[in-house]
Amino acid sequence: MTNNLNAALQYAHDNHETTLRELKELVVIPSVSTVPEHAADMYTAAEWLENKLTSIGLQAQVFKTKKHPIVFAEYKFSPDAPTVLIYGHYDVQPSDPLDLWETDPFTPEIRGEYLYGRGTSDMKGQVIASIKAIEALLEHNSLKVNVKFMIEGEEESGSPSLKPFLESHKDLLAADIALNPDTGMMAPDIPTITLGLRGVAHFELIIHGPKRDLHSGMFGGVVHNPAQVMCDVLSGMHNPDGSVALPGFYDKVRTLTKEEKEELARLPITDDTYLQQTGIPKLWGEPGFTPVERIGARPTLEINGMYSGYLGEGSKTIIPSYAVGKVSLRLVPNQDPAEVKQQIMDYLESKIPDTVTWEIKPPRGARASIVDRDLPATIALRDALKTVWEKDPVYKLEGGSVPVVGAMEEILGMKSVLTGFGLPGDNIHSPNERLHLPTWKNGIDTLIHFFVNMTY
Amino acid sequence: MTNNLNAALQYAHDNHETTLRELKELVVIPSVSTVPEHAADMYTAAEWLENKLTSIGLQAQVFKTKKHPIVFAEYKFSPDAPTVLIYGHYDVQPSDPLDLWETDPFTPEIRGEYLYGRGTSDMKGQVIASIKAIEALLEHNSLKVNVKFMIEGEEESGSPSLKPFLESHKDLLAADIALNPDTGMMAPDIPTITLGLRGVAHFELIIHGPKRDLHSGMFGGVVHNPAQVMCDVLSGMHNPDGSVALPGFYDKVRTLTKEEKEELARLPITDDTYLQQTGIPKLWGEPGFTPVERIGARPTLEINGMYSGYLGEGSKTIIPSYAVGKVSLRLVPNQDPAEVKQQIMDYLESKIPDTVTWEIKPPRGARASIVDRDLPATIALRDALKTVWEKDPVYKLEGGSVPVVGAMEEILGMKSVLTGFGLPGDNIHSPNERLHLPTWKNGIDTLIHFFVNMTY
Repeated sequence: MTNNLNAALQYAHDNHETTLRELKELVVIPSVSTVPEHAADMYTAAEWLENKLTSIGLQAQVFKTKKHPIVFAEYKFSPDAPTVLIYGHYDVQPSDPLDLWETDPFTPEIRGEYLYGRGTSDMKGQVIASIKAIEALLEHNSLKVNVKFMIEGEEESGSPSLKPFLESHKDLLAADIALNPDTGMMAPDIPTITLGLRGVAHFELIIHGPKRDLHSGMFGGVVHNPAQVMCDVLSGMHNPDGSVALPGFYDKVRTLTKEEKEELARLPITDDTYLQQTGIPKLWGEPGFTPVERIGARPTLEINGMYSGYLGEGSKTIIPSYAVGKVSLRLVPNQDPAEVKQQIMDYLESKIPDTVTWEIKPPRGARASIVDRDLPATIALRDALKTVWEKDPVYKLEGGSVPVVGAMEEILGMKSVLTGFGLPGDNIHSPNERLHLPTWKNGIDTLIHFFVNMTY
Repeated sequence: MTNNLNAALQYAHDNHETTLRELKELVVIPSVSTVPEHAADMYTAAEWLENKLTSIGLQAQVFKTKKHPIVFAEYKFSPDAPTVLIYGHYDVQPSDPLDLWETDPFTPEIRGEYLYGRGTSDMKGQVIASIKAIEALLEHNSLKVNVKFMIEGEEESGSPSLKPFLESHKDLLAADIALNPDTGMMAPDIPTITLGLRGVAHFELIIHGPKRDLHSGMFGGVVHNPAQVMCDVLSGMHNPDGSVALPGFYDKVRTLTKEEKEELARLPITDDTYLQQTGIPKLWGEPGFTPVERIGARPTLEINGMYSGYLGEGSKTIIPSYAVGKVSLRLVPNQDPAEVKQQIMDYLESKIPDTVTWEIKPPRGARASIVDRDLPATIALRDALKTVWEKDPVYKLEGGSVPVVGAMEEILGMKSVLTGFGLPGDNIHSPNERLHLPTWKNGIDTLIHFFVNMTY
């Protein structure tokens, strides 16, 4: 086995240029799931993956959904061996603001140790790493587990088709464990296992004032300005101390144990880490918790976008006709998205005055999740990381959300182990997204070890 | 004289189609002063006016300024006759949002009793009406006063070049009274003289957060969201009751006398008037004052525009890098724009936390103004309106601002009489701006009477 393992690792190393070329091929496809104009690109990306998975020896197929297709592939080793379902998504975030990219988001380019391009880190790079690990093991007849891939195209738009797909394909997807490489490492030298993920909810609020933009001199003083109402509403969702002001919002929030707090305190993250990554003058947030706790274990609420009125050069003295606000919330374990949705609606109904009208694209949500560190797969992952990095991994609570983890547990009864080889400085969801190639290379090695370790 | 007057009126009536064609020619020129792309159009409009004024017998010239040119023209009747300086502006508001226009803003079109197009009402129609009245009187040798025109191109962008021009051309501009037709009528059957105008101040605030848009999961809880800070700042500029919350803002506000309140109460305006004009469900504003008082005699603060983050389809879970807010204030007599500017700066400095950075395009302001109803020119205007409409005019306090009125008083020591033949439903500063042609036609007659009355 060791010889075969080494042969697989050698294969991965020898084929690194090919792997990189394949990743670039996938990044070139602008598979932005939220933008209707890219619908055809979603199929192109799905077919590229189907072809690639077929070429390395899996049975692959593309499932149509109401929105973007899901790629499924399978390698059957033995009914007696464990089965690992590898999750991935081939869709990416929108690339705007385009003018802040140094190079075209869909023309991948290597600069220094990084490959730049939308999706390189989140998560086409992780998908290619997973496929490449399986390819290397199959090439040397070393894959001793059953493997399934499920790669969706709607992760960045809330995965609306995924739950129905899970519901209607329970047998096809059956596995002992899911491997989800959609989280990341804390630093190139800190191998990381993610034990917790925040949930998410989001909504879009539109406040309507006058039927058209009005002259602010002729009507200022009798017409309630919808931009002002929007500011009142959004401002009122936080308390002055930085905590979320929705009544009941914290009632069910899971409290960190003393041990969890101690473990989080050991993470190699200081205020300076965040200051350097963000360029802000000073940290902010809910009092009584460390920054790491606030990101990993506390719920938050963010304005993702807002707009009203005139934004051109100079001034235009109007009362705008309407205002738009896009808001998302990060939820933590034990918060129920349905209850949070109700808290939002109750707040809006009590807060918005009858001098305006309003509409909401209703909140959608996904639960937070917690992963067990004693699962065999978590242990296999720990050992794989330890072998490659020659040090123990850290365990972290991730601030981001991977709603599929909750959905797979709820619908398939399947636990997930969470890893990934992106870094905090990868600019995911931002201009100049990038992938740290040395870490990514180690990631492929780690995944090869992981699948071998699964046969413990 | 009466015969000559009637001949002038007849000339104006006979030439109505020509007058309308000339207005259309001027509306076609997209002289948007706030948009740098239209710089050449400003010259085209100024030259059109120079040619027109020359063609009717005035000495006309175009003065360059640092920004957009000023058209000046003069007709010298006699050193012993009074001199009227007619003020106008040939620039117009931006036309966006363009998709809400039923026809192109710069392709004037008659529908029903209205001419639609940007600037038809504010104020190219008023400029053409003034020129046409002079043309009709000159045509029949009936102009017995000295007349000057000063038509600027920066009224909609705060008239930055006007004050320097007034300062350096005091002799050229010397006159007994200014006629300013940039205000309007309350309704087609209510001839109106404006006795008061609100002042204005505006500023643009930019709040900077992280150096790039951030993933709201990875950083939500430690980074102060600049959109949220913007909402806190803008929301905090009003008290919950609708009054402006800037400390000291109301300290110097001129109180209405009992008589003024009674006169305003007689204006034929009800809540329904505003509800119908705006389409809002319910009026809003500072308690303790009627809607007419709030617009005419109370200062207000409006968000004219705001922006932050992602506004595309679907959601993008980011913490935006920055937020922009554009704000304007309407001031009333006795408020000092310099003091208001300081109140704004004090508020921002105390309100904005050190978790973000910010910059401001500093407030610019213009004083409010009050006109005397016993001036000879006010009486000449009253009589002219009474003759044409066969009823006494109403006197109103206008919510809008015509900063030039204060500047001309301050620099030239010159009072203004304020009229105009636009209507509240003209959609000025909005899509589908229009001019009510029957009222406009009466307006030309009124101006002919006014100039004749000035020889009392």
